[in-house]
Amino acid sequence: MWPIVVALAAIVGAAHAECQRVDPLPSWNDGLVKQQIVAFVTRVTTPGPDCVDTADRVATFDNDGTLWPERPTAIVVYIHERLLAMAAKDPSLKTRQPYKAALANDLAYLAHAGPAAVATLYGAALGNETEEHYADDVAAFYRTATQPKFGVPYAQTAYRPMLELLQYLRAQGFQTWICSGGDVAFMRAVSQTMYGVRPELVIGSSLADTARLENGRLVLWRKPALSSFNDKGAKPVNIALHIGRRPLFAAGNVGGGGDIAMLEYSQGRPGPSFQLLVNHDDAVREFAYQERDSASLTAARAHRWTVVSMKSDWNRIIEPSPAPR
Amino acid sequence: MWPIVVALAAIVGAAHAECQRVDPLPSWNDGLVKQQIVAFVTRVTTPGPDCVDTADRVATFDNDGTLWPERPTAIVVYIHERLLAMAAKDPSLKTRQPYKAALANDLAYLAHAGPAAVATLYGAALGNETEEHYADDVAAFYRTATQPKFGVPYAQTAYRPMLELLQYLRAQGFQTWICSGGDVAFMRAVSQTMYGVRPELVIGSSLADTARLENGRLVLWRKPALSSFNDKGAKPVNIALHIGRRPLFAAGNVGGGGDIAMLEYSQGRPGPSFQLLVNHDDAVREFAYQERDSASLTAARAHRWTVVSMKSDWNRIIEPSPAPR
Repeated sequence: MWPIVVALAAIVGAAHAECQRVDPLPSWNDGLVKQQIVAFVTRVTTPGPDCVDTADRVATFDNDGTLWPERPTAIVVYIHERLLAMAAKDPSLKTRQPYKAALANDLAYLAHAGPAAVATLYGAALGNETEEHYADDVAAFYRTATQPKFGVPYAQTAYRPMLELLQYLRAQGFQTWICSGGDVAFMRAVSQTMYGVRPELVIGSSLADTARLENGRLVLWRKPALSSFNDKGAKPVNIALHIGRRPLFAAGNVGGGGDIAMLEYSQGRPGPSFQLLVNHDDAVREFAYQERDSASLTAARAHRWTVVSMKSDWNRIIEPSPAPR
Repeated sequence: MWPIVVALAAIVGAAHAECQRVDPLPSWNDGLVKQQIVAFVTRVTTPGPDCVDTADRVATFDNDGTLWPERPTAIVVYIHERLLAMAAKDPSLKTRQPYKAALANDLAYLAHAGPAAVATLYGAALGNETEEHYADDVAAFYRTATQPKFGVPYAQTAYRPMLELLQYLRAQGFQTWICSGGDVAFMRAVSQTMYGVRPELVIGSSLADTARLENGRLVLWRKPALSSFNDKGAKPVNIALHIGRRPLFAAGNVGGGGDIAMLEYSQGRPGPSFQLLVNHDDAVREFAYQERDSASLTAARAHRWTVVSMKSDWNRIIEPSPAPR
């Protein structure tokens, strides 16, 4: 009989451990923001009038500036690397716009040339190859490139407080999605290992692929044309396309105003919802920057979104972290 | 001590029940097709060199003609209903092509006018409203419309053998996706209740949505323009966009050749994969029809895909079924 008693005690012990009140967000300082997050999650996961079915516990996270730093944006660094490699093979690119400006980091030209020039660069740099070849090249980038400020590979730059938030939400039955302006395959390469987010839960920008046969095998060819630039109003559109419902929880950041529409879309959900906006106000530990028009913070005030001060609300930002669950 | 023993016995009993050898596919006749399916699933889910991680156990199913009948295709019936309603408000549609042909079921004209005319009709019938208004209208269609041959609502026309296959795959750790030529929101309305497939696991055709504010609330407006017609070569493209990897298991049907590319894409997966093609050869219990060019069956022979004879391989086709797990 003893083995049975021991086995049963182990089961009971495990169940008991699950109920212990361990702080799920230790990198978040105690304060209003942390209280609001925990209060919301508790409210929608506890039996009662505001409890939300697990099927509808959908959380969407922007990536650049929300889950990892965006100074510089990794996809932009990668595009620049690819353009340099292209120019090494075809020097005429150095004299042709918009390549010339991109190669010379002429941001004034690019700002003036606008979205069409950016789309051209995006397509040219990330297209004209198969998805599988592209995935191999992206993997090589992640093995070799380091984030300039932190001096570590991009895959080690996740914000520790946000990793805890992702894990906390998943433990409470949420699906955690990434909704990034970066290329979808570029993010999928690291989403599982960095964030514990499976590739099918990543939404991003995409090229117009086409199916073709290569030695009798069907491959997907990345045409050098942007199919969707997943920013601003495109984010709710792509969330609807991939998920089919409004997020219960949405998180973005102050930077380029790219997440306002996603947070508005979440807030339009019938019933409870939560919107989080990360503000970059920590020049020492990360970066301090604002939007010229303050659009994101203005929207946050108007809509009563929860604004995270990296400086005040996070006691850790970027440091080696355990593998996500 | 007795309560402990009883509790433990219950746990052991439950574990024992899971190991019983119940036929997971009772509506499939014993034969080569059923054997091939079970042998493949066993091979990729049993420890050994061909075992596939659960993360990569991705199965994609076409819907029209693969999971439910396509004579007529439900989305075409729905589009026709919507065009009739539009013509009641605007009689000029009855004299303008391609609406005139669609309203009069002039298939010869539509075949001649080609994909552009079909895209125009698709956009006009299913666009110009918010996603939420559209979802309400789709729900009303499913409450009222009946499949003409079987005389039951469309949501009761799932092929019983395919429901068993979906459940069997899920029980073996597969994600079961729908990859339909029908409108994605049209299919999501019934995917969970009919097939046990959550809305985010449905890929379909889609309109070019745009985000706009309506009384201060962000809504998604369905522009009357097709963004993606999820058929033929678009299927692997959209599978890559939504799932990010090649399906381990893919199922389509003989009809319009719409699933060949999806099955080729699955077969191009490094390592094991399985392709299933449903052949409509049962005029009595369902329908008997062929492709004019026999493209799907020709591809199946060339690539050694498994062809299902509805007549020989299925002992039941459409009948009331228990709610999917």
